Amino acid sequence: MYDCIIIGAGPAGLTAAIYLLRENKKIKIIEKETIGGKITSSARVDNYPGFTSISGSELADKLFDQVTNLGGEIDIEEMQSIKDGKIKEVITDEGRYETKSIILATGTYFNTLKLENEENFLGNGISFCTVCDGAFYKNKVVVVVGGGNTAIINAIYLSTLAKKVYLIVREDTIRGEKVNIDELLKKENIEIIYNSEVIKYLGENSITGITIKSKEETKDLVVDGIFLAIGQVPETKEVNKLLNLDKYNYIETKEDCKTNVAGIFAAGDVRSKKVRQLTTATNDGTIAALNVINYLDEGV
Amino acid sequence: MYDCIIIGAGPAGLTAAIYLLRENKKIKIIEKETIGGKITSSARVDNYPGFTSISGSELADKLFDQVTNLGGEIDIEEMQSIKDGKIKEVITDEGRYETKSIILATGTYFNTLKLENEENFLGNGISFCTVCDGAFYKNKVVVVVGGGNTAIINAIYLSTLAKKVYLIVREDTIRGEKVNIDELLKKENIEIIYNSEVIKYLGENSITGITIKSKEETKDLVVDGIFLAIGQVPETKEVNKLLNLDKYNYIETKEDCKTNVAGIFAAGDVRSKKVRQLTTATNDGTIAALNVINYLDEGV
Repeated sequence: MYDCIIIGAGPAGLTAAIYLLRENKKIKIIEKETIGGKITSSARVDNYPGFTSISGSELADKLFDQVTNLGGEIDIEEMQSIKDGKIKEVITDEGRYETKSIILATGTYFNTLKLENEENFLGNGISFCTVCDGAFYKNKVVVVVGGGNTAIINAIYLSTLAKKVYLIVREDTIRGEKVNIDELLKKENIEIIYNSEVIKYLGENSITGITIKSKEETKDLVVDGIFLAIGQVPETKEVNKLLNLDKYNYIETKEDCKTNVAGIFAAGDVRSKKVRQLTTATNDGTIAALNVINYLDEGV
Repeated sequence: MYDCIIIGAGPAGLTAAIYLLRENKKIKIIEKETIGGKITSSARVDNYPGFTSISGSELADKLFDQVTNLGGEIDIEEMQSIKDGKIKEVITDEGRYETKSIILATGTYFNTLKLENEENFLGNGISFCTVCDGAFYKNKVVVVVGGGNTAIINAIYLSTLAKKVYLIVREDTIRGEKVNIDELLKKENIEIIYNSEVIKYLGENSITGITIKSKEETKDLVVDGIFLAIGQVPETKEVNKLLNLDKYNYIETKEDCKTNVAGIFAAGDVRSKKVRQLTTATNDGTIAALNVINYLDEGV
């Protein structure tokens, strides 16, 4: 029987683990994919207080070390469902575990364009992580799809490796931090194409290009790789019957990270909230953990 | 004319500065006392994600470096009042400054006993934060001073780590949430000493004990550490006519850090909220800064 099972080992889940381990709670941390979560795909993190500049994977390593240093372990398992009750059960691909409380810190996954053949090209021409896959495109031509801060950062990063970077923006403007926009606009090998959508992936076994469409025209671009930065989807399908979700399927909580089910908390990007940053994830991890401690103290 | 004046250079204010500087906003940061704020009085911070263990002042240095690296400067000035208006004014002991927006990150100060040698032991035997510093007292003897909910919670928390916890209460009763009192009374390693006051800190370079006094007697207790829980006071007296405060004089905001005055935001410990940790301070700094940016974008 665990005091708490933390689902997701990103910054929110790992912060919760730090607080619970420091209280000598018996916890299990599960992560289905990447320890450190989505930050591991960031080449550079410059806005996390305490580090002037650090790579996402370095920061993830530090969080991991901090947790293991406190005796925590992270199990690579995938949560399949949760059974509520005074004693709750977390069912994964590896087993069933009883626990008094749960922190859902499952985060989000990257949105895709839902075009024909997309499945074939995921991880094989279509990528989300410039840090992971950027190096494959040295002196090649790549396209970044999206108009937000992530798209901008990805385009800047890729411009230092690739010969040419197209940035395909659906709207007539890009939105992001001013320092990033300024840097983007200075890059001579980035071409921004506004008011355009990708409507087709070209290629047989690998990506050879894309078809883009604007009001005026439809045309093909020859590219070697595609980086999608068109938003994220919360990882909540396993709990959508149990928990109250907002209209975008994020878990509804107040600032206290409490869900509608007693003893189940949500922390980090998976929570319904306005700002999703590293700092807001660690905030949630802290608050969820302290509320787990209160919940356990009440004598579950 | 500044885009934003940040009042208080603790973790909340410095995080807000990082976000605003990265947007090329023209800001002024003022701090009346200690750059880094209250963390500088923590000998060791083990629960801030990213650092397995770091001293509070080292972490403060890192935050300071990060801000100066972005071109930020911190002026040692004391805010005396704020004049609201579409253009606001911050009046300090050094001058008057016009600004479009303000972030109040003034924090709180801990009440202390005002005894001889207290200054020497602050952060070196005298602590205020069990979550931050409790782990240093595993299997040791500690004393908590205070009779309210914070003192009770601190004593409970410490009882799970320390060998023995004294709770020194000035009155003949303790006041707090019933669940907490019930739990406190069950703990076998907590000894409550009522009707008593601490009148002296014992020790040369570090705390070795305290002298307590009741009607009946004066005696010494051998202790390794002291946790004062005799209240915290928010730094809000300069703004108590302008802003809505809760009954303890903390600034009322929602999770968005907006006060009742458009363009004035509150971040960090000075906000009315449940959890006050480093992570929640950097969270607030982030959210306040992003909301300042939105506010400025709306065209003040």
